[in-house]
Amino acid sequence: VQIEEVGRQASIELLSRLRLGRLACARDNQPYVTPFYYCYNDGYILSFSTVGQKIEWMRSNPRVCVQVDEIKGPQQWTCVIVFGRYEELPHSPEWHQMREMVHSLLEQYGNWWEPGFAQTIIGGAARPLVPVFFRIFIEQVTGHKASPGNDAAAAKISAPKSGGWWQRLRKGS
Amino acid sequence: VQIEEVGRQASIELLSRLRLGRLACARDNQPYVTPFYYCYNDGYILSFSTVGQKIEWMRSNPRVCVQVDEIKGPQQWTCVIVFGRYEELPHSPEWHQMREMVHSLLEQYGNWWEPGFAQTIIGGAARPLVPVFFRIFIEQVTGHKASPGNDAAAAKISAPKSGGWWQRLRKGS
Repeated sequence: VQIEEVGRQASIELLSRLRLGRLACARDNQPYVTPFYYCYNDGYILSFSTVGQKIEWMRSNPRVCVQVDEIKGPQQWTCVIVFGRYEELPHSPEWHQMREMVHSLLEQYGNWWEPGFAQTIIGGAARPLVPVFFRIFIEQVTGHKASPGNDAAAAKISAPKSGGWWQRLRKGS
Repeated sequence: VQIEEVGRQASIELLSRLRLGRLACARDNQPYVTPFYYCYNDGYILSFSTVGQKIEWMRSNPRVCVQVDEIKGPQQWTCVIVFGRYEELPHSPEWHQMREMVHSLLEQYGNWWEPGFAQTIIGGAARPLVPVFFRIFIEQVTGHKASPGNDAAAAKISAPKSGGWWQRLRKGS
């Protein structure tokens, strides 16, 4: 397997092309990761949720991480990781266009945003249904890509079949 | 769409059946999430990596979150989220059996664990190659499952087509 770094532009291209990612937030140093649908626009990742654990955590700590990937197999994948900052889109007229953009995304993906909504009914919880538009400002983006590869370096780093550090490690000697 | 909670046992069953998940850790309240291969065994998630950002962060803060899912579409998915604690498996004989188990996983997935290794060569970085076996003690596991559904509750919570809070929200009024 051959691993290459993916530059910023190619990483952004992957982010633009995909819609499903994983969003991690943290509170008191406890991380929390969920799948989410998003769309990329001009340096930002746009999405929508209803108020709940994820939104509450991101309000209290805006530092987030978004991870997207295309995994065809253990030796063939591309993975992009974003460090970013959560920003809520206020319910005011000047954010109309941004909300329209997120709304188009919603329509494209049907009812995907309903989990938060549905839970309020099924769980019988008292929390009100408060829809939230948010975006993530991309502070840092890094990407890596694996391909089967067949060069000398790749051969050199294949798993040792016997002997060497690998066997010693397994045997605990 | 109809959302149900998935009980602990069904959540563990999904964890057992899948091999690819996302692992989130955090340092100084900055979350970091990466895809990883794992196997489930008796209350623990087992995996392997080489020393790098992820391992360093989990050593400094063992609180982690693991997320796995089967996503067939926006209305049909199962998602399981684990809050857990990172534990490194020492390189000593009493951990032999555990290492064997992780090693079987490695073999099953070929060279998936090489990224960390390959990066040390391609990036030309000076950091030594230090393989690390670890497990995550499952402190809390929750699961949710969405299915298209067609009951009254599901109909009631479908997206409003016009009017109501949704339109008002979009228009910012």
